Amino acid sequence: MTDQSKSAEKPWGGRFTEPTDAFVERFTASVGFDQRLYHHDITGSIAHATMLAEVGVLTMDERDTIIAGLKAVRADIEAGTFEWSVSLEDVHMNIEARLTDRIGITGKKLHTGRSRNDQVATDIRLYLRDEIDVIAEELRRLQTGLLDLAEREAETIMPGFTHLQTAQPVTFGHHLLAWYEMLVRDAERLQDCRKRVNVMPLGAAALAGTTYPIDRSITARLLGFDRPSENSLDSVSDRDFAIEFCSFAALLMTHLSRFSEELVLWTSAQFDFIDLPDRFCTGSSIMPQKKNPDVPELVRGKTGRVNGHLISLLTLMKSQPLAYNKDNQEDKEPLFDTVDTVKGCLRAYADMIPAIEARADNMRVAAKRGFSTATDLADYLVKKGVAFRDAHEIVGKAVAFGVAEGRDLSEMTTDELKRFSDVIGEDVFDVLTLEGSVQARDHLGGTAPAQVRAAVARARKAHLL
Amino acid sequence: MTDQSKSAEKPWGGRFTEPTDAFVERFTASVGFDQRLYHHDITGSIAHATMLAEVGVLTMDERDTIIAGLKAVRADIEAGTFEWSVSLEDVHMNIEARLTDRIGITGKKLHTGRSRNDQVATDIRLYLRDEIDVIAEELRRLQTGLLDLAEREAETIMPGFTHLQTAQPVTFGHHLLAWYEMLVRDAERLQDCRKRVNVMPLGAAALAGTTYPIDRSITARLLGFDRPSENSLDSVSDRDFAIEFCSFAALLMTHLSRFSEELVLWTSAQFDFIDLPDRFCTGSSIMPQKKNPDVPELVRGKTGRVNGHLISLLTLMKSQPLAYNKDNQEDKEPLFDTVDTVKGCLRAYADMIPAIEARADNMRVAAKRGFSTATDLADYLVKKGVAFRDAHEIVGKAVAFGVAEGRDLSEMTTDELKRFSDVIGEDVFDVLTLEGSVQARDHLGGTAPAQVRAAVARARKAHLL
Amino acid sequence: MTDQSKSAEKPWGGRFTEPTDAFVERFTASVGFDQRLYHHDITGSIAHATMLAEVGVLTMDERDTIIAGLKAVRADIEAGTFEWSVSLEDVHMNIEARLTDRIGITGKKLHTGRSRNDQVATDIRLYLRDEIDVIAEELRRLQTGLLDLAEREAETIMPGFTHLQTAQPVTFGHHLLAWYEMLVRDAERLQDCRKRVNVMPLGAAALAGTTYPIDRSITARLLGFDRPSENSLDSVSDRDFAIEFCSFAALLMTHLSRFSEELVLWTSAQFDFIDLPDRFCTGSSIMPQKKNPDVPELVRGKTGRVNGHLISLLTLMKSQPLAYNKDNQEDKEPLFDTVDTVKGCLRAYADMIPAIEARADNMRVAAKRGFSTATDLADYLVKKGVAFRDAHEIVGKAVAFGVAEGRDLSEMTTDELKRFSDVIGEDVFDVLTLEGSVQARDHLGGTAPAQVRAAVARARKAHLL
Amino acid sequence: MTDQSKSAEKPWGGRFTEPTDAFVERFTASVGFDQRLYHHDITGSIAHATMLAEVGVLTMDERDTIIAGLKAVRADIEAGTFEWSVSLEDVHMNIEARLTDRIGITGKKLHTGRSRNDQVATDIRLYLRDEIDVIAEELRRLQTGLLDLAEREAETIMPGFTHLQTAQPVTFGHHLLAWYEMLVRDAERLQDCRKRVNVMPLGAAALAGTTYPIDRSITARLLGFDRPSENSLDSVSDRDFAIEFCSFAALLMTHLSRFSEELVLWTSAQFDFIDLPDRFCTGSSIMPQKKNPDVPELVRGKTGRVNGHLISLLTLMKSQPLAYNKDNQEDKEPLFDTVDTVKGCLRAYADMIPAIEARADNMRVAAKRGFSTATDLADYLVKKGVAFRDAHEIVGKAVAFGVAEGRDLSEMTTDELKRFSDVIGEDVFDVLTLEGSVQARDHLGGTAPAQVRAAVARARKAHLL
Repeated sequence: MTDQSKSAEKPWGGRFTEPTDAFVERFTASVGFDQRLYHHDITGSIAHATMLAEVGVLTMDERDTIIAGLKAVRADIEAGTFEWSVSLEDVHMNIEARLTDRIGITGKKLHTGRSRNDQVATDIRLYLRDEIDVIAEELRRLQTGLLDLAEREAETIMPGFTHLQTAQPVTFGHHLLAWYEMLVRDAERLQDCRKRVNVMPLGAAALAGTTYPIDRSITARLLGFDRPSENSLDSVSDRDFAIEFCSFAALLMTHLSRFSEELVLWTSAQFDFIDLPDRFCTGSSIMPQKKNPDVPELVRGKTGRVNGHLISLLTLMKSQPLAYNKDNQEDKEPLFDTVDTVKGCLRAYADMIPAIEARADNMRVAAKRGFSTATDLADYLVKKGVAFRDAHEIVGKAVAFGVAEGRDLSEMTTDELKRFSDVIGEDVFDVLTLEGSVQARDHLGGTAPAQVRAAVARARKAHLL
Repeated sequence: MTDQSKSAEKPWGGRFTEPTDAFVERFTASVGFDQRLYHHDITGSIAHATMLAEVGVLTMDERDTIIAGLKAVRADIEAGTFEWSVSLEDVHMNIEARLTDRIGITGKKLHTGRSRNDQVATDIRLYLRDEIDVIAEELRRLQTGLLDLAEREAETIMPGFTHLQTAQPVTFGHHLLAWYEMLVRDAERLQDCRKRVNVMPLGAAALAGTTYPIDRSITARLLGFDRPSENSLDSVSDRDFAIEFCSFAALLMTHLSRFSEELVLWTSAQFDFIDLPDRFCTGSSIMPQKKNPDVPELVRGKTGRVNGHLISLLTLMKSQPLAYNKDNQEDKEPLFDTVDTVKGCLRAYADMIPAIEARADNMRVAAKRGFSTATDLADYLVKKGVAFRDAHEIVGKAVAFGVAEGRDLSEMTTDELKRFSDVIGEDVFDVLTLEGSVQARDHLGGTAPAQVRAAVARARKAHLL
Repeated sequence: MTDQSKSAEKPWGGRFTEPTDAFVERFTASVGFDQRLYHHDITGSIAHATMLAEVGVLTMDERDTIIAGLKAVRADIEAGTFEWSVSLEDVHMNIEARLTDRIGITGKKLHTGRSRNDQVATDIRLYLRDEIDVIAEELRRLQTGLLDLAEREAETIMPGFTHLQTAQPVTFGHHLLAWYEMLVRDAERLQDCRKRVNVMPLGAAALAGTTYPIDRSITARLLGFDRPSENSLDSVSDRDFAIEFCSFAALLMTHLSRFSEELVLWTSAQFDFIDLPDRFCTGSSIMPQKKNPDVPELVRGKTGRVNGHLISLLTLMKSQPLAYNKDNQEDKEPLFDTVDTVKGCLRAYADMIPAIEARADNMRVAAKRGFSTATDLADYLVKKGVAFRDAHEIVGKAVAFGVAEGRDLSEMTTDELKRFSDVIGEDVFDVLTLEGSVQARDHLGGTAPAQVRAAVARARKAHLL
Repeated sequence: MTDQSKSAEKPWGGRFTEPTDAFVERFTASVGFDQRLYHHDITGSIAHATMLAEVGVLTMDERDTIIAGLKAVRADIEAGTFEWSVSLEDVHMNIEARLTDRIGITGKKLHTGRSRNDQVATDIRLYLRDEIDVIAEELRRLQTGLLDLAEREAETIMPGFTHLQTAQPVTFGHHLLAWYEMLVRDAERLQDCRKRVNVMPLGAAALAGTTYPIDRSITARLLGFDRPSENSLDSVSDRDFAIEFCSFAALLMTHLSRFSEELVLWTSAQFDFIDLPDRFCTGSSIMPQKKNPDVPELVRGKTGRVNGHLISLLTLMKSQPLAYNKDNQEDKEPLFDTVDTVKGCLRAYADMIPAIEARADNMRVAAKRGFSTATDLADYLVKKGVAFRDAHEIVGKAVAFGVAEGRDLSEMTTDELKRFSDVIGEDVFDVLTLEGSVQARDHLGGTAPAQVRAAVARARKAHLL
């Protein structure tokens, strides 16, 4: 990027009596980060020129000259031969200046009937719409991986936790489907957001519309927007779509951080429930034995980044009077980084999840500990006629005895159990097994293997996964 | 609320060897704030009991006894005669304990096949669904007020600003419709959120489902839920719906803070664009002349509160392993306060907006200042064949001359204007008037009065306002 | 609280032509939460009246009448017989109105030379200064508990983790001192914050100072402030001190959330490193065996709340022009709740930490797993002349062999170890023991028991704990 | 940066059986952003090598070879000839690998007695300490500019605002000193933060200290740290210093956003209180007349960014168990960007503030409007024996009369004024002038010109500005 001032080139120099301060020029320029929008900027300009010709503001020749010029500029950028200039402030002016260098005075006609205010709003929406589609695809890939793994592990029994204390046995497949459900909501929110992204601000010009006889339905159609926006002041000052996307992202990352926390726990020596292949882990520069679950940890850490960007954008927009203010230039970096972060994390997870190896034996041993079938005993008592609250109290006392003796409920004798309630009979041991426990929770949403398989089938059908 | 410990009453005391520490009891109790859920808790319990009878877990008599008991408890609460106990921890246990006091052992059967984990998740969703409907109605009331005012002010001309500098003339009606458009998106997001709120977690029990032959479609139907949730682990640990609601609220408050900023500016002596009736303002204890726009200021300030609650909930859920953890008790206060804040702010705005009196003369004077029709002059030149970028440069020089002379473009002579471009003729003054400027922006989304009226009509039709 | 409007009583009604709207009155009133400041408000008023008499604005008799009246009002409030009125807006006007009811026209002189703007700023600072001192004391209590426990557990060996993977053996005392160090920084930050809290805004009046011959050094002295503030506009609009306090609180809560995470892990069946007494835990309404670490979980959850309040206040103050704006009324609830949360969490931790029981046997077994002395072997090789990076590689291979064989390094024979490097001799087993490992890290900050004891001694001396 | 995998080079490859996945390698690498630390990394390594030689772990020759090698690497980096490798993960391994390429096996000895965990913590602290000193200097430059401007404008009268309504006349110098006071607190907080930054983690190694006979006081002295840290676990996991710096930055940006808001208001056509030179402004691509206050707007917008980074870091650290986790890699980008943002904004303001031109006439006209001396009239009445609350009421009525008549208090006749209170005499007009009003507020912190000059003098003396 060239740093020397070319203020003479400024698109707005007419009324100014001194050039911009060199540091201020760098400080206020956005080209360092908004050049990423070059592709969508040129796409938007081509549509704009096409529409201007359609309504008679440009001739067909002018249109063709402009479009050819824009394509040549795009080729330069993609070939890496384009020299970005800070004194030209932003991606829009850099491209327009180069266009005019190439095609002469006709280039100066491109900006007719628009402003950078509606131009940048259009660029960001085109960019974000494309990225949403990429993200939707990565989400599907991760969801598919989860369904496959859940089906494979539909009968694997692990301890279900509440408060990180052993609660009740669940199937590993059932646990994975909880993750899947979170992503279903994320995918829905992403599509809800896309509806509001895919509305075209172009034609709002600086803030009030334009005096040229533009036809916004043409540009909207050419650019694949659902419709033109309804109000020009709103169009140039609205950044809701970016904030809504970041809200989606913050929830998605919250989910990935929850998965990550569990993966970190499960790969610890204390849990040892799963194995992550070496290719998703790294080591230590000092401790030769280490194999660290870097990917989950890093994804967990990146949650903070995305929450931060959400707050950045909300703070940015708070109390801004209409219409466009320079503050809004700060909308891009948080959005870009959120997009990159979400894509990276989803990709890493979509690659990694299918490679998880369950250590079913360790899970089973853990599930047997911690009186995980105590609720089943309470339910057994209820079915024998004890009120639930009383059954709970009875089992609580049996557990206290077990804690003191160092034995699980299933390791007590019938006589010992009878001491707590005389309705207990030999059949109690059927409900105290892990298999008995999970199979008994056989209703929509329950942990029984049959329910897990049914849920996988429903999900595949509903989402075509 | 009674503070003395009644640990003997604890619903889980069986395995414990010492009572809860008195401070810990207060510190961990939620009844101080979750009693607000009593109505929905009882509604949920009635549906649960009805379903349990339907599937044969309770007898019809037990069901009737329980329902009558619950209604009596509800009456006590509403009569203010219910004594909430901290040692009973939360709204659920307070109500259940009172129920059992009233109806005896049958009360102990109500909790069969559920847990507080799915119970509280159900209560919050019922509560939030109701509040969403109230908020949607207040939103509509505010939107209606905006449309009415926009129609009334469709021809009133004010300066449009960018960077808080005079940019181009716009109509006040057009400006108000920008606010309206923001609320359209908010209303859409609220309904999108409602879809995900209205899913029933009941039946997930503690985390894995239950061994009783429950039929979740019955309870879902009784409670007006769209469907039962798909996964029990997810059902008890998911708080997405609360976070999504807070995201909606943060955007809505961002919009209200933008309106507020403008109302504060417009009521300042420097702008003096509108008058707010005394009943929405307050005075000063020391400065006798003050009439302060308290409502907009306070609403602007409350944006921080709602952003803060959003961050609270995102932070709360970050990295929590499945399923329910005690952390989640912290979900309620931020949600409740967000609901209250949004309702209060919307009500204040829906009351206040129709009472705004525009000071059209002051707006008009302001619109004439600041070379607001400079873009119109540039467009005029383009229509005479000058390339847009060159036209911009020419007008820039004319403005610099005007700044030096202290005169607006419309106050220069034709000869003076001709100095900058000889294509300028007498007809230039048609485009330099305020009316000419706004009427020329006559396309979908533009500021022309005809467009404002058309937009109001479209909005009324689309949203039945 | 009485709700009926008493607008006639408004302290600023003179220029208004219609009463405040009833809903607006409630919506804008702060007395619902700022009545908490009554004590400091009265203290400030007594000092103000004393100063006014000192400089001749009040007579000594007026002063005495006012002070007696204020004390009587305070007694009413503390006796619960004070009727707070929403139409009197805030704590200041409620107290002043009652004072005038009691003592007549002299009461109307109290507000001479001040405004609610400087009055409320003074009240909050007095309140926060007192709360800081309470919090500092709870912090010390927790720090003392940590030092005692660290000393007791100076020789207890546990696995040190990085990435939640076994890294190297550490002493439990050393681990606890890491917590202690975090609190040392928190305590320092709290005192740094206190310096900036303890500056007196009184005398700034509405924003510009007052025309009365006040002497601010008198009120500052009477109220224990370090000095009067330097600038009146700043004094009434500054809320830095509240934000800085919330920044302190967010870091403290971050630390407590880290402790909490570890306590939750350590009480899980998988780790089982410590026991928390029953009185700090609660149970489940459905699972009779559960004993949940509620206090750590809840404290962890409350981190979100405090982070949220910090963001609330930062958002609140963003871009406010000088001087006081109504937005600032929103400063109190986040601050009050932050204070309450911090005090509650510290109290719970200061009570709970000394009651932690280490399960040294479980810790020891865990420390032996995971090749925790691999770094010691590498260091051993270095001391025999191998370059560190090469030593790391050699040990890495020995660990890979151990993983395959299912044996720790200390369980291999000398011959087996020699296969990886022939500098290994019999003396290698000295460094592969847990005791050898921890004792070898015997420098300032290292985990050796001797260092732990020395660190405890230094801490006690430095902070008089 | 080379992308091809060089996993064979990994410093921890020994125990791994498959190479890192190529995407994972890029996803987890930090060298893209942490290369910025190269200078401090090499400085730290030189000190470490020096200490190792001092205590006999390295020979003097080894030390000299290493130091010469590190300096050569540094020269390569600064010459732009250093090829950074993603597969070497981070700045540390890139530099060490190159060192070993250059000097052979001796290079492998540098990492003796340390780990990347303490190394990176040391690097960031060295980096931040340097940046704090740069920021402190820019802060002083801005403060000096404010004092100079305040002195120059000590007698210029402008309206003081509360609620953006005209409140009382103040001097422009007094207003500027309010800004100055905010920065005084920021500067203090920055130095308080520096104390906690300047503590040395080096020697903590991976987490537990090291078995080599290191002397941490030597490295601390060589690197200019105040002291070595007290606890190794804390040293590698603590990021308080970064969060505290971001808290400082968030408050500073809050202040700059408040200044910015006022500059934007003051440069609007409606206020027109000041002129900003063209070199700090930019124009519009469509509206030729625009001169936008870009610098203040952009600074205001950047507040969001810094608040966001603060939340990122708080979220990042929430609930992390000890000691180092990969999450912590996410600490750098928010910190780096906060440093860059703060430096840029301070530089822009320190350059711009001295160039502000006050439009004293416009300020004066505005100050006369809005009954700004109403409080003075109330005070006048009090001095004639009316109780303050009654005086307030009387003036309120006079203002209501003025509003109706369209006349200021100073424009009424004595007879008209007497209608409201018969104690009013001819001398009332002395207190109703702007000069009378500001000069009467002549106490510490008041707006009188003499107080402004005294405050400037005190500030210059106290802070040597």
